Amino acid sequence: MEKITSRANEKIKYAARLGESASLRKETGEFLLEGARLCFDAAQTGIEIRQAFFTSKALWKYEEYVTDIIAKSSVCCEIGAEVSQKLSGTESSQGVFCICSMKPQPESELLNTSGKYIALENLQDPSNLGAICRSAEAIGLDGLIVSGGCDIYNPKALRAAMGSSLRMNILSVDNLDEIISAANEKGMLTLASVPRNTAEDIRTVSMSGGVICCVGNEGSGLSRQVIEKCKKQVVIPMNGRAESFNASAAAAILAWELKR
Amino acid sequence: MEKITSRANEKIKYAARLGESASLRKETGEFLLEGARLCFDAAQTGIEIRQAFFTSKALWKYEEYVTDIIAKSSVCCEIGAEVSQKLSGTESSQGVFCICSMKPQPESELLNTSGKYIALENLQDPSNLGAICRSAEAIGLDGLIVSGGCDIYNPKALRAAMGSSLRMNILSVDNLDEIISAANEKGMLTLASVPRNTAEDIRTVSMSGGVICCVGNEGSGLSRQVIEKCKKQVVIPMNGRAESFNASAAAAILAWELKR
Repeated sequence: MEKITSRANEKIKYAARLGESASLRKETGEFLLEGARLCFDAAQTGIEIRQAFFTSKALWKYEEYVTDIIAKSSVCCEIGAEVSQKLSGTESSQGVFCICSMKPQPESELLNTSGKYIALENLQDPSNLGAICRSAEAIGLDGLIVSGGCDIYNPKALRAAMGSSLRMNILSVDNLDEIISAANEKGMLTLASVPRNTAEDIRTVSMSGGVICCVGNEGSGLSRQVIEKCKKQVVIPMNGRAESFNASAAAAILAWELKR
Repeated sequence: MEKITSRANEKIKYAARLGESASLRKETGEFLLEGARLCFDAAQTGIEIRQAFFTSKALWKYEEYVTDIIAKSSVCCEIGAEVSQKLSGTESSQGVFCICSMKPQPESELLNTSGKYIALENLQDPSNLGAICRSAEAIGLDGLIVSGGCDIYNPKALRAAMGSSLRMNILSVDNLDEIISAANEKGMLTLASVPRNTAEDIRTVSMSGGVICCVGNEGSGLSRQVIEKCKKQVVIPMNGRAESFNASAAAAILAWELKR
C-alpha cells in the first residue's frame, strides 16, 4: 500500500478539492466520503470506490470496516496524520476517506407514478439536506428529488445523511417545475408546501396514489414557478407565533404524512 | 447613548463571555441574544432586557425593531463594527445584541397534567435543540422539558429556535427521571422514544390524556434510568437500512403524533 505523508501530494490535493468544490464534484462525477462506517456503507451499497485513504491507526482501529473497503477499492493508500487532517471536515477524524463515483442518475422516466416523493428546491443547509435524506429513507419514501443548490455530495450533507444518500433513489434535476409538469401529466398528485395556514391542511389530503411534495429553501421557501405548477398548496398547521418549521422538521412531518 | 469602540470594554467582554460560556449563563441567569428580529421578539415577549448594543448601521437599517428594543432596555450602547464582530456568532451580523435575563423557571408543579410535552435528555447539537423548540411551538405542545447538557440559551440554539425558546414554556431540570416519576404519579403517560422496531408503534399509542415523550442524545439515545422510568417504549417505525432519525426530525414527528 502506497504511503503518503505530504499534504502537497497530487492525490491528496485532488481529494481535498473534491471535498471543497461542488463544481469539481459535478464536473468529475466523483465525491469525497469520510468516516469508517460511511465508507463501509458505500462499499456495501455497491458504490464504486476509486481510491481509499487510511491512517495507520484507522487500519487496526476500524479493521472490521476497512477490510471490506480495501476489497472494493481500486487504489488504497496509507496516509499520515497531517494528511488526514487536511482531508477531514471534522474535529476528531477517524482517518478513513474514499473517493467515490456518483451513482448513475436515475432517468426521470424511472419515477414510480404510484410512489411517494419529497422534492427539495434549493435547500442551502447541507445538514438539513442530509437529515432529510435520513428521514426519507427511514420513513420509506420511494425517493428524493433535489434541484437547484441542493448538493447531496457535500461532505456535511453526506455526514448528516448517515449513509442514506448512498442508498436512496435520488433524482437530481435542474428545473423542478419541469418534473412537476411531467408528474402532473402522469396523474400524480403534486403538492407545494407553504407556511400559510390558509393552504390545505396536509392531514386532509388524500395520499392514495403517487405524490410529490415540494419543500423550499430555508429562507425564501418555494419559487413561484414551482408553487404554480403544483396541483395543491399544503400546510402543516401552525400554532402560536411560530411562522414556519425548520426545513428538515417540515420535511420529516410531510414525509410521515405522505406514508400515513 | 454611550459609544463603545474598544473590544476590551468591560461591558463587551462580559457580553462576549455570556455568548461563550454556558456556566456563566447559568451562574448569572443572563444570556446574550443576537439579531434584530430575535431581540425585538424578546422585547415583545416581555423578556427583561438589561443591556442592548447596536451598530450605527443597525440603528437605521433595523429602525422598526430597534425602537422597541431601546424602549424596553435598561442600558443602550452604540458599538463599532469591530466590537460587533467580537460579539457575533454569525458571518454576516446585523449588529444588534441584547443581554437578557432568563425567564423565571416554571415550577415542576406547573406541568399541566393533561398537557403534551417533549422531554429532551442531554441533546448535544444546539441547532437540533433550537429546531425542536421551533417545532414544538408550531405544533402547539404545552411545553418542553430539557435536562442534562441541553442549553437553550446557547447562541446557536437561540438562533435555530427563531424566537420560540423565548415564548415557549420550558422546564429545565437536572434529573429527567425525577420528573418522569412525578408525572407517572400524577397519571400522565410517559413515553421513551427508542430506535427499535420492537417497541410500540407511536401511531398506535393513545394520546387522550397528558403525555410526556422523551427523546435522547444524538449518539447514545436515552439513558437506561429514563427508559426504565417511562411507562412505555415507543418507536417511529423505520424502513430500509436506516437505523435512526436525526434527533430534531424524530422530535418533530413525535410532537406531531402527540397532538394528532
